[in-house]
Amino acid sequence: MSSEEYRLKKNVLGRMVPTIINGKPAVPFQGVGKYRPTGCKAAPPISTCVDYPPDGNKVLPDLKTSLIKACIKDGMTISTHHHLRNGDLVANQIFDACAEIGVKDLIWFPSASFPCQEPIINHLDSGVVHHIEGSMNGPLGRYASRGKMRGMGVLRSHGGRYQAVQDGDVHIDIAVIAAPTADPFGNANGLTGPSACGLIGFALADSQYADRVIVVTDNLIDFPCIPWQIQGNYVDFVVKMDKIGDPEKIVSGTTQITKSPDRLLIAELTARFIKEAKIMKNGFSFQAGAGGTSLAFVTFLEGYMREEGIKARFVRGGSTKYLVQLLEEGLTDYILDGQTFDLDGVRSMRENPNHVNTSPFTSYNFHGKGNFASMVDTVVLGATEVDVNFNANVVTHSDGLLLHGIGGWQNCLFSKCTILSIPSFRDRIPVIVDEVTTLCGPGELIDVIVTERGIAINPRRKDLLKAIVGSDLPVKTIEELRSEVEMICGGKPAKPKLGDRVIAAIKWVDGTVIDCVRQVM
Amino acid sequence: MSSEEYRLKKNVLGRMVPTIINGKPAVPFQGVGKYRPTGCKAAPPISTCVDYPPDGNKVLPDLKTSLIKACIKDGMTISTHHHLRNGDLVANQIFDACAEIGVKDLIWFPSASFPCQEPIINHLDSGVVHHIEGSMNGPLGRYASRGKMRGMGVLRSHGGRYQAVQDGDVHIDIAVIAAPTADPFGNANGLTGPSACGLIGFALADSQYADRVIVVTDNLIDFPCIPWQIQGNYVDFVVKMDKIGDPEKIVSGTTQITKSPDRLLIAELTARFIKEAKIMKNGFSFQAGAGGTSLAFVTFLEGYMREEGIKARFVRGGSTKYLVQLLEEGLTDYILDGQTFDLDGVRSMRENPNHVNTSPFTSYNFHGKGNFASMVDTVVLGATEVDVNFNANVVTHSDGLLLHGIGGWQNCLFSKCTILSIPSFRDRIPVIVDEVTTLCGPGELIDVIVTERGIAINPRRKDLLKAIVGSDLPVKTIEELRSEVEMICGGKPAKPKLGDRVIAAIKWVDGTVIDCVRQVM
Repeated sequence: MSSEEYRLKKNVLGRMVPTIINGKPAVPFQGVGKYRPTGCKAAPPISTCVDYPPDGNKVLPDLKTSLIKACIKDGMTISTHHHLRNGDLVANQIFDACAEIGVKDLIWFPSASFPCQEPIINHLDSGVVHHIEGSMNGPLGRYASRGKMRGMGVLRSHGGRYQAVQDGDVHIDIAVIAAPTADPFGNANGLTGPSACGLIGFALADSQYADRVIVVTDNLIDFPCIPWQIQGNYVDFVVKMDKIGDPEKIVSGTTQITKSPDRLLIAELTARFIKEAKIMKNGFSFQAGAGGTSLAFVTFLEGYMREEGIKARFVRGGSTKYLVQLLEEGLTDYILDGQTFDLDGVRSMRENPNHVNTSPFTSYNFHGKGNFASMVDTVVLGATEVDVNFNANVVTHSDGLLLHGIGGWQNCLFSKCTILSIPSFRDRIPVIVDEVTTLCGPGELIDVIVTERGIAINPRRKDLLKAIVGSDLPVKTIEELRSEVEMICGGKPAKPKLGDRVIAAIKWVDGTVIDCVRQVM
Repeated sequence: MSSEEYRLKKNVLGRMVPTIINGKPAVPFQGVGKYRPTGCKAAPPISTCVDYPPDGNKVLPDLKTSLIKACIKDGMTISTHHHLRNGDLVANQIFDACAEIGVKDLIWFPSASFPCQEPIINHLDSGVVHHIEGSMNGPLGRYASRGKMRGMGVLRSHGGRYQAVQDGDVHIDIAVIAAPTADPFGNANGLTGPSACGLIGFALADSQYADRVIVVTDNLIDFPCIPWQIQGNYVDFVVKMDKIGDPEKIVSGTTQITKSPDRLLIAELTARFIKEAKIMKNGFSFQAGAGGTSLAFVTFLEGYMREEGIKARFVRGGSTKYLVQLLEEGLTDYILDGQTFDLDGVRSMRENPNHVNTSPFTSYNFHGKGNFASMVDTVVLGATEVDVNFNANVVTHSDGLLLHGIGGWQNCLFSKCTILSIPSFRDRIPVIVDEVTTLCGPGELIDVIVTERGIAINPRRKDLLKAIVGSDLPVKTIEELRSEVEMICGGKPAKPKLGDRVIAAIKWVDGTVIDCVRQVM
């Protein structure tokens, strides 16, 4: 891939971004809320019941047969979801089957990829897969960063992925949906079965918009599979497999709170900030991730809620036992959940009607008539780097390697108060920097940085600065934080050694290109 | 409207049908499963969150304001659903508001209309409404039958309505969705509130495909309204009203079994047939309506199920307390329900996760990848007329007046055994006739006619004839039934006095035209 193939242009954040991605035109980021889509949603071909068995039995003997029946061809886009996380046993088998069939140059469009899918590298090397559009965690990211992938990677948020499919930016030829439980008609859910993962909402767009939809399950039950998180009316074929996932790697038995004193301090400061800025009040809402610091934050906040007799209207998952506890003890009316991270989360979603499954459509799609993300009072997120303009990075490290996906991170920035709770440095490398290596989230949407060395509030948020007047929270400027950290780490982080070649584009929630990632030499 | 405007053509059933309907081309019925759709589904314009309030509050002060904000214009198509049945208080107010605004020539596209909407006749007379596409029960049907409506009525089944919207045959400009409960974001359901009707699935297509969607509620609650049977992400505006429905006319307090000895006999014979033909077996499924005969049928069948220790896998609603009883007493695993007819139905759907709400998409849409209707073992339906070729009519009486909608009737004909349980005559007018006045369902899909005078099995169903060999069920030929009935009634029914003008087209489930209805002189 040469640079003519993607013609760079500077976007409003000053980032050089490709205007052509894998042969298709791309629009540079124009500012938050500035880009307006035109035209109509993607329109899948009209199906007819005439082509489907009247008794509803769409079961085929194996994955390879289903791919052949779905008319797989060179260059097609094949999608998968990542609810089975690092326990997924399906994606590798899909591309093994594609290799056996003899097709080439496929585009893999996962909602995220995981280290367990490292074997896809063989299919990238052999030409079966042309490139990956989706997050590339760990080994696949490293492979792309080294310039070994033929096409350009495209990273999108969960909402951005729904938007791209809905708007027709990405046309899925064949969706393969791994389903912990399904019936022969293709109704499917993630609630039960040996590979239960809670919900499978990341596959919603795939089911609605793909030309062909294959449901793969290791728990085939009689019609009807209730609830139908995926509706069989969108499904072409159903395949029964021995095992779609490795349960221990799908969900944790228990999720663990951090034991690091620094991380515990960050969690406590975050919860205190939310309390003292009066964001914590009856009927409020919040979202936090499933990392150790986030979990600790939830328990600190829970403590304050109990002390002050405060109840939330809803909390957003990814869910863990700590959120489930809030629900079961009456500290929130609802969990609105996008993925379940542990067994308590799965159980609660199965049993409790107030633990509600959501999808990237309801939660995050920016090209809908609103979404849930902007209605959340506060969200606590991580980042690999934050710069003095509050811009943040979640996909690369300061060495330039692409090692993480965006997840729902960009979408969550639309919350009423976005907090990044992060250590000020990692492995003696500053996290607070002059300029982020990759800009995934514009500083105007990032309100508060909480570190173990203090809290920086975005000067745009005068309301927040005012709200905590009189509190003894360790508030500093972001520049002060940066200087302290540079002192500790012995200076600014080393510049990464990057080549010219763009190996991945970073999309914003509206489909425009906010930044790109270059090859690491 | 002159006949040049709709050029008649004979379809494969020998019926003369319009090939142009309200200015748009129409395809004559080509036989069951013969017509193949081409092209792609309807593609609504892409929205953006930029145009919607970040806090999710879409509430406007009143219906008129919302129609103006939705840019209502002359000639637009306005849709409503009929889950509030004869208790609906919204539809009339919509067109009153349209009259105030001063728009003309609107097309009203209800999922069904009811006698309570008789005032729409004023708006048809004044020119505010041009014509109605949807069932016209009672007074509106009589108005159309007398040739008073300007455009041609179009009657579709529930599945056909979803198909028409999905395929772009009907473009909804503005959908107004009456919601017993909703939140300010537009999430809505029918489960709670003073106008609770159970579910609001008939509005699903409207929410997905209309350009503008207005949710109207008399029970506005804090976000989130759970479950969201209608998703706020499709909704533009929310309007709070004092009262959207008259509870007593929405659902019955209790649904009543027929007391007529003839109807009871029909019900019993139907249940016996299902038992003796061995359709009733463990894991079977059935659907019956909510009329007095259907309810009696359910109680007879329940008796046989108990006697023989048989359990159903699922039963299809419209639900009533009789189906709820089956569910609660363990005689079925699930109710898959499209509408709830009484308070027990509403309660059960609210409380019992195995009482599942369905939509015309999952149940009936013929242009999907299969649907539920063809998976049902047996369905018990009514009809206004059946002819000796097993063709049946559900929309007109033998006097030619259009008085009923199609409902899910056409869709249900795809069940594995379709039974029409009907009196052989009504008011001294034969129901079994030489040729139906209006052909709504082709005889090849109608398997059994059960009357108080005996049972006729479609000669195509040799398997059913064989299955009941040795039983003492009163099986006759359809010709024998017709002759008996004519004897009782003193001959064949009088021919209706019809004009030339086509006042309504009857669509088949695939969007083709199976028959039409003429003006009654």
